[in-house]
Formats: sequence, structure tokens, C-alpha cells
Amino acid sequence: MSPFPSSAPPTEDWRHLRLSVDDGVATVTLARPEKLNALTFGAYADLRDLLAQLSRERSVRALVLAGQGRGFCSGGDVDEIIGATLSMDTAELLDFNRMTGQVVRAIRECPFPVIAALHGVAAGAGAVLALAADFRIADPTARFAFLFTKVGLSGGDMGAAYLLPRVVGLGHATRLLMLGEPVRAAEAERIGLLSELTAEGAADARAAELARHLADGPALAHAQTKALLTAELDMPLAASVELDAATQALLMNGEDYAEFHAAFTEKRPPKWQGR
Amino acid sequence: MSPFPSSAPPTEDWRHLRLSVDDGVATVTLARPEKLNALTFGAYADLRDLLAQLSRERSVRALVLAGQGRGFCSGGDVDEIIGATLSMDTAELLDFNRMTGQVVRAIRECPFPVIAALHGVAAGAGAVLALAADFRIADPTARFAFLFTKVGLSGGDMGAAYLLPRVVGLGHATRLLMLGEPVRAAEAERIGLLSELTAEGAADARAAELARHLADGPALAHAQTKALLTAELDMPLAASVELDAATQALLMNGEDYAEFHAAFTEKRPPKWQGR
Amino acid sequence: MSPFPSSAPPTEDWRHLRLSVDDGVATVTLARPEKLNALTFGAYADLRDLLAQLSRERSVRALVLAGQGRGFCSGGDVDEIIGATLSMDTAELLDFNRMTGQVVRAIRECPFPVIAALHGVAAGAGAVLALAADFRIADPTARFAFLFTKVGLSGGDMGAAYLLPRVVGLGHATRLLMLGEPVRAAEAERIGLLSELTAEGAADARAAELARHLADGPALAHAQTKALLTAELDMPLAASVELDAATQALLMNGEDYAEFHAAFTEKRPPKWQGR
Repeated sequence: MSPFPSSAPPTEDWRHLRLSVDDGVATVTLARPEKLNALTFGAYADLRDLLAQLSRERSVRALVLAGQGRGFCSGGDVDEIIGATLSMDTAELLDFNRMTGQVVRAIRECPFPVIAALHGVAAGAGAVLALAADFRIADPTARFAFLFTKVGLSGGDMGAAYLLPRVVGLGHATRLLMLGEPVRAAEAERIGLLSELTAEGAADARAAELARHLADGPALAHAQTKALLTAELDMPLAASVELDAATQALLMNGEDYAEFHAAFTEKRPPKWQGR
Repeated sequence: MSPFPSSAPPTEDWRHLRLSVDDGVATVTLARPEKLNALTFGAYADLRDLLAQLSRERSVRALVLAGQGRGFCSGGDVDEIIGATLSMDTAELLDFNRMTGQVVRAIRECPFPVIAALHGVAAGAGAVLALAADFRIADPTARFAFLFTKVGLSGGDMGAAYLLPRVVGLGHATRLLMLGEPVRAAEAERIGLLSELTAEGAADARAAELARHLADGPALAHAQTKALLTAELDMPLAASVELDAATQALLMNGEDYAEFHAAFTEKRPPKWQGR
Repeated sequence: MSPFPSSAPPTEDWRHLRLSVDDGVATVTLARPEKLNALTFGAYADLRDLLAQLSRERSVRALVLAGQGRGFCSGGDVDEIIGATLSMDTAELLDFNRMTGQVVRAIRECPFPVIAALHGVAAGAGAVLALAADFRIADPTARFAFLFTKVGLSGGDMGAAYLLPRVVGLGHATRLLMLGEPVRAAEAERIGLLSELTAEGAADARAAELARHLADGPALAHAQTKALLTAELDMPLAASVELDAATQALLMNGEDYAEFHAAFTEKRPPKWQGR
């Protein structure tokens, strides 16, 4: 996602989620706890455009995606979304489903790591938002449910049939997407779906700590690591090796790499600038 | 695989395997127990054409693949197949090896989930048949052996070098295909090769139960989930997200999705029709 | 890599590593223990060209890559490499980073299995060399650290952002490459990064034993298994099945396959010739 702004002005009034930014760390909170943070049309659109805006602003170096209340996110709202889609025509249905996929692409393509802080339920679209993140930090109450087939839809929603096999392997991914059963934190950790399992209630704090660590580090190196991981899933080996070579040559001209060497020589910690 | 029949008539006389169909659940049993269900030329051809025929008939919504007797399948018959191939010319060898690969493609491309019910040995081609299935339900006596190198052949047989790294990762896949050593049920579960480990002797019953659950559910949603998982292994992220969007738009026009919402609103279980 | 030699003569004087060959088993030892086998420009170039030369000579059927002293390899030398790259121009930086990637491609593309024998640290480029091998045999002192971001560079170095997600899944790979933290032997085994965990101090002996087993076996079958695993990571299912069919047809014309059948019939062990 490009940092070059067009004439379209940024907004600070995100109505369907809560945003705070603190010295390079953005925290986006799904804040509709009375509905288990069920997603609305507005929430999807805000997530998509917020990530694009933050990508342009360049001030964000790590982002935490969290949920307020009893769980992370229960997915698309049964009344507002499922009910509404029943009276949409085909073009409208395509528009809606493309929008949800654009949120996933924005999470994968924004130039900073995204950390999902998970407790309670991450269901349906909520499970895929977490899946698209770079890190999934969860406490023992967390559970995933890719419950799309349970509402008569395909388990391949918002890129889940692409992403999940690449995270947990095709066997587990088939079981999770076809059956839609809950995956509790212990199983999620065992099959590679979690980055880290914390003590109960500690996922938000640990996600914030990791985001701080990433934001204070060599942020351009982190951004490129993410970009290469995303790109090379879709590239052959020889081209990947060439992309890596070009990327490292670029970063070896950068300030952080020189700073590492200076700090190492002077036996002091490096002062990262993210460039 | 297309449901549109051509002029070629279906058959009910499958001579090299046993077939039963019960209200949307097909059970295919390798039934040559005195040879540990070793595969013959006829068995491969029957598996390939049976899956194509069942795909056309549209009445099957889930399929169990099981083995009669002491094990699931010991692979290609040493006498009938290995012996026979030694006197084949190059074109015949290609024809034979393409046929075995067509069975794997049929398992991956048929429009219903395939559940391998595993006990005892799944060796050589038998291991690959199980690997190609959507679910692998095994009891503790089950063991896999991708023993191709032990007969002087490539571990990449019938798509195994494509499928196995996508199920268990490249490291385990290399070890299993290069060495051909047995993988017992506990290890298979640990590395993600099993969907479910049952009590001893319970794999067939559990596979039947899962097939019944799938066949009685939103079968078109299951079929599309399988199709997307299969397709998106070979697709980049952006295209996968677009395929998901088109698929969900399609299914949101379907009867099962409306039925889910009606049932949810009326607080009753949905009556799935598979369309 | 092609076995056909050009006019360029082979060398037996590899100055930046230690090579021994014993009846089909090559052992390459990083032998700069006072620097934890830190890699130099010469070591990268020697690894690249040695693998090409061994591929031409056809006498090697398995290769062990090991490190002398307290660890396997601490990665690129901070003084000789990081220091030197700071004064390189862009073309030189590309040349250097392409060379390191060529070593990884040589490991993946040479026609014999490569076994990394690991103890102590495998850091930076050392971790990627191990990752590119077909087998990773480690003792409990082994630890990986993909510490590229810690020097201000991308975690995608030498193909790591391509290879690691395909070995341990995207979730673990993101964590390992983005954070650069050490991964100890127990975790490496749990996430699928190890082929085998040995007793302390036993990795070199076990790697030698495995190399001997592979070299004495059907080496052409092993070579093709490796080639197909490497190729099919980048291929769709249908093409992979076709490649497998052509490969098996080829090997079914080979001597080892006929020898297997003769030995089986005569109830004796096969005498493999590797062709």
C-alpha cells in the first residue's frame, strides 16, 4: 500500500472502530462489546480505509487489532449483514464480498506488522481477520471458529482457503474450514495457529509490548520482512532468492544497517530509525 | 468434475472394489483383504471412473474410502503391477503412471468431501490415496509408508511430492518421501497428517459418522470449500480473495443461506438442502 | 545442476572449507572454529562452486554439511562481511546478495540429498544454509536464529522468506523471521524445523550414518525425489501429477527398479546401483 497521498483528505473520525496511536504503535479496537464486536458494513469499510490511510501516513510502525469486552470478534452481524445480504442483488453481493476480502488484503499488504490480540471468540470473519494478521497473541480463553459452512457458505471466505493451509497445513485447514467447529487455544497453539499463548487476560498487554518492541526496532527491516513473506508465498524459489538479494542490497544502503555496525563496534545498543 | 453426463452409460458393476450408497453417503471399500488390498490395474481404473461417475450423478454428498481386513491398502501389487511394468514399453509406462495420478486428481476434484478410514497399513499408492483425501480418520494401528524409494522409484508418485509438503511441511515431507520409513499413528497425528485419531477399531464407524454429518449438512457449501482449498493452493492471494468473493456471492443467492437465516430467526435447526 | 563438464577444470583446493569424500558421501565442514565458522566472501563462493563441481562429478550420492568446534555456523562475519558491505556500491551489494542466494539454490538444486549436521548456533546465513538442506539432524545444543532484522536487514535473506513458511508454516515463519529470536532444539523439533533430534554430541555421527544409508541406496530415486519436492513447491497439482508420471516411467526403465523386483522374488536384499 502506497504512502503517497492523493488529494483525498484523511479523516480522524472513524465511526465504526476505536483508534489510538502512540509513538508509532496504532491500536485498533473493535468496540461493540454488546454484540461481541460483530462486524457491520461500516466496520469492514473503516478497517479497509483506515489501513490504507495509516499506510500513507508512515507514522505507524506496528498495529494491534483487539476486541473490547468478552471476545475478539463474533464475525459478520447476523441481523445487519446476513439479513441485509438476503435482499441484495448479485452485483451488491459481489461488492460486499470483495470489500471483506479487501480488508484481508489490506492487513497483508500494509507496511507494518499487524498483531491480533485475542481472547474469547474469533468467529467467522473475526477468525479470518486474526488469520490475516502477522502475529496472533492469544490467552487461554481464545477460540477460533471458521463457521462459514454453518451458515451455508463456503469456508473459503476473505482468503481463508488460501491463508489457512499456509499457516496450519492442508489437513488441519480442511477440517477447520469444512466443519466450522471451534478450535480452542491449546489446539490452535499445537497446530501453529498461534504466535504466542499468554496467561489469561494478558493478550492485550503482551500484544502492546510486542508492538512497542517492533515499533522501536528497525521498522523498515520489519516492513520488508512482512512484504517478502507475503510476496514469496506466491513466488517460485529462484525469483524469491532474487527478490531477497535486491531487498538486502537496498537495506544495506540504509541507515539502520550502518547503525547496527557502528553500535556493534562501539559495544552499545543500536538506535534504530526505521530507514 | 462435471455433473453433465455424456452418452456413455453409467455402470453399477464395479468389479475391483465394493461400493454402497446410502442417502448421499458413498462407501468405497478396497476389498481384496487376502492381499492387504493391494491395488491392481483394474482397481486404479475403477477408482478413477467411479469418482467421475459419482460426480455426474450428483446424489453423493460425501464419500468414505476404506479397506477391508487387516489394513487399508498395501499399495501397488508387487506381482501384478511391479512385475507387469517391467515388460512395458515407455508409452505403456506413461499410461500407467498417468492413470494413478488421475485417481489422485479425481479425489481432489470430485465435488464432495472424501474421508479415508484408516487402520493398519497405508503403503505406497495406498498412502497417497489417503493423502489425497480431505479427511484422514485413523485408529492407533494405522501407519503410513511412502515406500517408493524402497522399490527404486521416486517418492514423488501420484502427486505425493506436491501434496505432502502442503500437509506436513517440506521438512517432514522430505524425510517421509526420501526414506520411505513407516509413520505410525501417533507421529502422523503430531505432524498434521491425521484429521482425527480414534480408538482402536473405530475408524470406519467414525468416518461413516462424519460422512453422514457432511451429507446431511449444507453440501454445496462443503463442495465449494473443498474446491477452493484445492484451487487456492495453486493461486496467489489477490486472485484467491476474488474467487472467494465470487463464490460467496453465488452461495448467498442459494437456498441454504436463506434457510440458515430463517432457522436462526425462528430459533430452530436449519434444514439443509445442499443448494 | 548439470553433470556435463565444460572446459573449466575442477579444483581440489577448496581454501574456505574442508571437504572429504568417501565412497559417495561428501562431507563439507565449515572449519573456522575460532570464529564460530562465520562465513566469509570466500566461503560463500566455495560453497556455491563446490556444489556445482560435485554435481558434475556424479560420484557424490549424499552430502553432509557440518561445522567444526562449538557450533554449526554463526552466519556472515560481522567484520569481514558486514563491515565490507558498508563501503560497497549498489552493484557490488547486489552481487554479494545474489551469491549468497546462489548457495541456497545450489543446495536445493544439486542432485543429491544434503544433510545439515547441527550443534550449537546456526545463526543468520548459517540458519538459512541449514534450512535449505533436505535433512536437519540436530543435537539438543542446537539453536537457530534468523537474526537478520537484528542487524537492520530483511528476514527474507537467501530465500528464507520462501523456504521457512513452507517448512514450519506462515505463522511460525513470520515470528522467526520478524523477531530473529533464538529457536532452541526442542521448539525446532515441535514446529517441524528438525528432521531428527539426537543425543548431545551425536548429530555428526547420525548425519554420517544417514548419508551412508542414502548413498548406498537407490541414489537416482533419491535424487529424483529431491528434484520433485523442490520443483513441485512451485507447480500446480495437475502439472505435478504429470511430472510424477513421467519421472516414474523413466525410473521404471531403470536398473534399480528391476533389481528391486528380482531381489524381492529371490527373497534377498537388493543391490542398488543408483541408476
